[in-house]
Amino acid sequence: MTTSNPSCLIKGIHHINLLVKDLAVAVARYQQVLGVDEMIFAELEHRGMRCARFSVGGTWIVLVQPTDPEGVPGRHLAEHGEGLFLMSFEVDSLEDAALITEQKSGRFLSDEPRQGLEDWRVLDLDPDQFFGARLQLISEG
Amino acid sequence: MTTSNPSCLIKGIHHINLLVKDLAVAVARYQQVLGVDEMIFAELEHRGMRCARFSVGGTWIVLVQPTDPEGVPGRHLAEHGEGLFLMSFEVDSLEDAALITEQKSGRFLSDEPRQGLEDWRVLDLDPDQFFGARLQLISEG
Repeated sequence: MTTSNPSCLIKGIHHINLLVKDLAVAVARYQQVLGVDEMIFAELEHRGMRCARFSVGGTWIVLVQPTDPEGVPGRHLAEHGEGLFLMSFEVDSLEDAALITEQKSGRFLSDEPRQGLEDWRVLDLDPDQFFGARLQLISEG
Repeated sequence: MTTSNPSCLIKGIHHINLLVKDLAVAVARYQQVLGVDEMIFAELEHRGMRCARFSVGGTWIVLVQPTDPEGVPGRHLAEHGEGLFLMSFEVDSLEDAALITEQKSGRFLSDEPRQGLEDWRVLDLDPDQFFGARLQLISEG
């Protein structure tokens, strides 16, 4: 069962980020308990984080360890603790989706997309507008 | 791009729950800004919550308003604030997946599955084992 949402620009959940204090310990736990075989490791220095990710059913699960207490992940960890952190919505065209979202009163944290992992380009929605939830629009390439 | 995880029992992200204080306000915001047309409303009295959900790319996004401050959603809201709350992993057979997960040292919050929305049957993984993240296994029917 699904709902019909022809006006919605979101094509799917591109990735979900979870904050952890110790990436190595978290990776070992996910591998042991959930049977995750393959993880891809990366660092995003300008975001103040390093991470390991695996995919399930077309969505990336990203374990994120803050490396800078003043970065967004670091501050979120200090304020809310470990656990679910961010959900990224896949759109076809980031620029088109941003324009339409702004026309519908949506607010972003920046005017320009920021670089995520690989060739991911993201625009963060204002968490204040979504009741504390960190949501973003994303397109690859 | 995906990772190869043949040992992993997780087939996909079945649903993501977000906590909100006021469901009506949240529903209106998601409809306005993200263009969500259709929402399905429900109440789970034994869980102390009511909710509205919509689907994107095969995953349910569930907005959850606690109705009981002593229920799990209510206590999570008090402790962590609004925002991302829970991620549910779809498995083929809940009983088989639970057995295999326990053999891999996984711990659940209860021995028996609990009833979720519709015909969803869930087993909650121990958040202490997953660094504060509320994760669960789920199967329908």
